[in-house]
Amino acid sequence: MDISRMDDLVAQALAGDRRAIARLISTVEQGGAEARQVLSRIYPHTGRAHIVGITGAPGTGKSTLVAELAKAYRKQNLSVGIVAVDPTSPFSGGAILGDRIRMRDLATDPNIFIRSMATRGSLGGLARATADAAHVLDAAGYAVILVETVGAGQSEVDIARMAHTTLVIQMPASGDEIQAIKAGILEIADIIVVNKADLPGADQAVAALEAMLDLNSGHTEWHHGRLFQIEGVLAGGDQVKHSWRPPVLKTCALRGEGIEELVQAIAAHLQYQRESGLHQQREHDRAAEQLQRILRYTLLEQLLERIPKHALQETVEHIVAREQDPYSAAEALIAQARLLS
Amino acid sequence: MDISRMDDLVAQALAGDRRAIARLISTVEQGGAEARQVLSRIYPHTGRAHIVGITGAPGTGKSTLVAELAKAYRKQNLSVGIVAVDPTSPFSGGAILGDRIRMRDLATDPNIFIRSMATRGSLGGLARATADAAHVLDAAGYAVILVETVGAGQSEVDIARMAHTTLVIQMPASGDEIQAIKAGILEIADIIVVNKADLPGADQAVAALEAMLDLNSGHTEWHHGRLFQIEGVLAGGDQVKHSWRPPVLKTCALRGEGIEELVQAIAAHLQYQRESGLHQQREHDRAAEQLQRILRYTLLEQLLERIPKHALQETVEHIVAREQDPYSAAEALIAQARLLS
Repeated sequence: MDISRMDDLVAQALAGDRRAIARLISTVEQGGAEARQVLSRIYPHTGRAHIVGITGAPGTGKSTLVAELAKAYRKQNLSVGIVAVDPTSPFSGGAILGDRIRMRDLATDPNIFIRSMATRGSLGGLARATADAAHVLDAAGYAVILVETVGAGQSEVDIARMAHTTLVIQMPASGDEIQAIKAGILEIADIIVVNKADLPGADQAVAALEAMLDLNSGHTEWHHGRLFQIEGVLAGGDQVKHSWRPPVLKTCALRGEGIEELVQAIAAHLQYQRESGLHQQREHDRAAEQLQRILRYTLLEQLLERIPKHALQETVEHIVAREQDPYSAAEALIAQARLLS
Repeated sequence: MDISRMDDLVAQALAGDRRAIARLISTVEQGGAEARQVLSRIYPHTGRAHIVGITGAPGTGKSTLVAELAKAYRKQNLSVGIVAVDPTSPFSGGAILGDRIRMRDLATDPNIFIRSMATRGSLGGLARATADAAHVLDAAGYAVILVETVGAGQSEVDIARMAHTTLVIQMPASGDEIQAIKAGILEIADIIVVNKADLPGADQAVAALEAMLDLNSGHTEWHHGRLFQIEGVLAGGDQVKHSWRPPVLKTCALRGEGIEELVQAIAAHLQYQRESGLHQQREHDRAAEQLQRILRYTLLEQLLERIPKHALQETVEHIVAREQDPYSAAEALIAQARLLS
């Protein structure tokens, strides 16, 4: 794509042109130099949307909940972007018929933009692509961006970091499964939703979750002011303690029950963040993490440009043969790239 | 830790000393320069273990299955390392009583080493720490290393890349949940296990999985010879097509049923990989990915050493204020670090 074409596309996307938005999301999804040029151009226009992450295991009905949330925001006359990371989400087309029908009226609303992300690729590529897609929708003026992810893996944690408000969706379940919530998920939840609350055991699930929150109340501080994190090790930055107790709400998305209360809780969380200064702190964290990510891959790209491919191949073969360890090999490649600069 | 102490610990761990092994795993888990020194020292002694990844949602009984596999390998007089990434795993202590009792005889076997990984941290830190822990156990001479993870997130895909053989654990389930398997999981599965096969619907689950494998048979080639991947974009390396159809096995781990057949399937997969040359290709891929990962964080560390902390803070604040976009900011920081070098 030449520069004037890109400038045109960006201008059209900022003006709300859906085809331009779709094209830009495809470009940023692919990564690389072109993606960076797009993101660099749209960046000054971002920061206005309320990004809401919705995560939960398959079968918890989170796609239906996302659809109901979108409808509720449309009633408030807010435009809605939906980014679905779950490959089984109806938004991704991998759905059963009932879901697809339920989504159809969303798909035809000109103030709703739905995008599903490919889940191939690795090395945080999905979390990056998802964040970048949300940035495009943010710049294009969508007021609320709903990011739907599946499960409780690292991607979800990464995506939760990007979101202003993260909903964790549960359903009435056995003690075993409630146990599974406790570990990773409570740390990222701003609001916990027990969906399918018409099923037996909903009140027990709420009680179990509240009990876990009681137990965890000493541990759920958000650590802020983090500047850089290398391989899981904090490197610089002060930590500011903060406490927000996630409300536990019951919904039955299929019947549209509990959605108003959920929308209010999401708004309350945003207001709380703004008033407490937490919003600004999270913005700071997000910027630091994004900068770090860009630095990492830009540095690697620049190194790879300076090392001939056959030298890389040989190094890898030495590592496979255990003739060289990968740490010493990395140091040697970096030294070699320096010599060439 | 001083160098002579580290050399002692490495020597003790290589000789099988459990306390030294535990200490080295803690060191590599934390990351940083000390972790790299340890890994650099043990690297020449790695590459002998059969690393088996076991992934599946909470509730599929995969911890029980891991315990049964460990017992089966012990009967073959093979030593077993267990690395549990699932925070709800009984190996991590987050278990219900029955599970803990079931694990107790494993925990007292001197030829079984059990380690659970902390799930805090981010940016692929968990996948790295898990791989590094497995490398320590490999160097220490454990013949089979069982790595237990939860869910279908990016971490699992990253961990699957590390394993020689990946088992995906399912249980008899509704059509909706089977749908969820299809998307990400079939790509990483070498063997599919329908556990809890005493529950109704086991045969239907097997049939559904086999049907999905039929559908996917054109798409399940492994792409090999990948040299480097930057932000999900392939950069160099040839792709070699390959096809292995994952067998679908039924087990009932609680009753110890189907375990022998599973152990045979795991052995058959290893043999297939060795005979087809796939083993060597995967070793190559793993080495390339590990080298790339080390390069990325080493480069970032070296950059951060050259940029004063206040300059980083200011850059982050400019990004938050939308006065600078993170892509231009990264370029400027890299240029600044060059000037200082």
